[in-house]
Amino acid sequence: MVTAADITAARQRIRPIAHVTPVMTSRSFNAESGVQTFFKCENLQFGGAFKIRGAANFIGSLTKDELARGVVAFSSGNHAQAVAIAAQRAGAKATVVMPVDAPKSKVAGTAARGAHIIRYDRFTEDREAIARKVTEESGAVTVPPFDHEWIIAGQGTAVCELLEQTSDLDAIVAPVGGGGLLSGSAIAAKAVNPKLRVFGVEPALANDTYLSFQKGELVTIASPDTIADGLRAPHSGKLTFPIIEALAEDILLVTEEEILAAMQFLLVRMKILVEPSGAVPAAAVLFGKLPKNAGRVGVILSGGNVDFPLPF
Amino acid sequence: MVTAADITAARQRIRPIAHVTPVMTSRSFNAESGVQTFFKCENLQFGGAFKIRGAANFIGSLTKDELARGVVAFSSGNHAQAVAIAAQRAGAKATVVMPVDAPKSKVAGTAARGAHIIRYDRFTEDREAIARKVTEESGAVTVPPFDHEWIIAGQGTAVCELLEQTSDLDAIVAPVGGGGLLSGSAIAAKAVNPKLRVFGVEPALANDTYLSFQKGELVTIASPDTIADGLRAPHSGKLTFPIIEALAEDILLVTEEEILAAMQFLLVRMKILVEPSGAVPAAAVLFGKLPKNAGRVGVILSGGNVDFPLPF
Repeated sequence: MVTAADITAARQRIRPIAHVTPVMTSRSFNAESGVQTFFKCENLQFGGAFKIRGAANFIGSLTKDELARGVVAFSSGNHAQAVAIAAQRAGAKATVVMPVDAPKSKVAGTAARGAHIIRYDRFTEDREAIARKVTEESGAVTVPPFDHEWIIAGQGTAVCELLEQTSDLDAIVAPVGGGGLLSGSAIAAKAVNPKLRVFGVEPALANDTYLSFQKGELVTIASPDTIADGLRAPHSGKLTFPIIEALAEDILLVTEEEILAAMQFLLVRMKILVEPSGAVPAAAVLFGKLPKNAGRVGVILSGGNVDFPLPF
Repeated sequence: MVTAADITAARQRIRPIAHVTPVMTSRSFNAESGVQTFFKCENLQFGGAFKIRGAANFIGSLTKDELARGVVAFSSGNHAQAVAIAAQRAGAKATVVMPVDAPKSKVAGTAARGAHIIRYDRFTEDREAIARKVTEESGAVTVPPFDHEWIIAGQGTAVCELLEQTSDLDAIVAPVGGGGLLSGSAIAAKAVNPKLRVFGVEPALANDTYLSFQKGELVTIASPDTIADGLRAPHSGKLTFPIIEALAEDILLVTEEEILAAMQFLLVRMKILVEPSGAVPAAAVLFGKLPKNAGRVGVILSGGNVDFPLPF
């Protein structure tokens, strides 16, 4: 069970690597949404996303022996880059297994951090077999993308900061992919103030946690095809989901159009680039998905790594 | 003659309206440019550009009688919106004369601030005649875009803030259109530390101030056709140019390609949207136009209002 003390310890552990990101407000966003909103800018985080928090906490928790064996991660996205950065800082060798169709910028960013990259074909090769081979041959420790206590504790640090940077918040809104960020956020929020309301947001096209939340058990959906590429996990985690179920008030859904509109508002009106996954909670606020009178709302803009020409 | 005291007074005057914008740093920008750079984010300013500083100082300096007669501005861009905002806050009526081909978003933003908008055809109508008619009929006070002491003093406030937010700067780099921002910045910088080096940057396609600086007198060029739409003034001002000549070390030039590359770096790597005019000084740093060993450099990202589909 991840506790507030674990998150406090994680803050110390990640301090040399992760930024304390700024909190931004926007009169025009507040006017348009009718909600007083405080944005935690993880798009300005080192590596362009909150993922460095969990990766740095995980790698910082390893023993010297484990670090000497190196780490391995499986990701085409922000987790790959975060693991490469955190491993490089810890002086550990990182191997990252990425599909051949992973975005070039992510592959380049990961390679630039000194990680050894193994490419595989998602359609013809068995990722599990490659993973087994890498870990068996090297003894490397796998850094999981979300379903691990150290990862959850690391991701929870963003909300700790937000609650110190912004007084009297009434609610926290975070995106849900595998649930690492939302579960860590919920533990951090409730530890500070049990009355703080916690909401997760998913693309309607990737509504696995919404369905799980309704049903009271982990539901797996077919590979979701949403523009929010960071939220395509077909189910949340065995560790993360029970935390979400216990602490979140609701899982909200947004359409692809709402995600794009929020991304555009953040870019054109607020002048910040947020990736589709990061714009998902902002979309929920902007399009009135929160209960009425939500009060002062903290929104986590989880990342800013956009790998495609802007779609508007 | 604008003094440091005028800029200090301007800070008090604009405090209720203009934001104290944040200063941003980027390891990757520093690594790529080889220059330790501190960005003053006027793209996050109220109205999306530094222009509110000058407009609020000007309008805040008017007498009650003058305010009662209202103000008028001629602009298709950021100055229009700034005058509309500052007039609305002062309870003064604003008339803004905008060409019919002005960007829709700027017209809408100006109208949303309660300004009365007069449209004219740049090719068939005489702007001067319209201006005369408006001011004669209403007695309204014209808010000039750059060549006025109150405007210069207002624009100088950004560098005052930057020097308080960032210690031990060695140089300041600002874009030059009409020269309001650069002249105000230079006065503010030299007042704090006479050794602070001040550089202006222009698009090579709009090199009027560069030519004036070389020649030692005000040079006018034909309507410049640069993507940096805020820097298309065909000459700097009768007040601003002598200040620039006296206090700036050099005027640097950047190409259209360099402006776009800087804009893209700011967006994709640093996650902030900066308009072409605002990216001009960043381009000078990124592409090595500063003298070697410039030290710690403050760059003014002057605005973030982009009116066209992103060009990359």
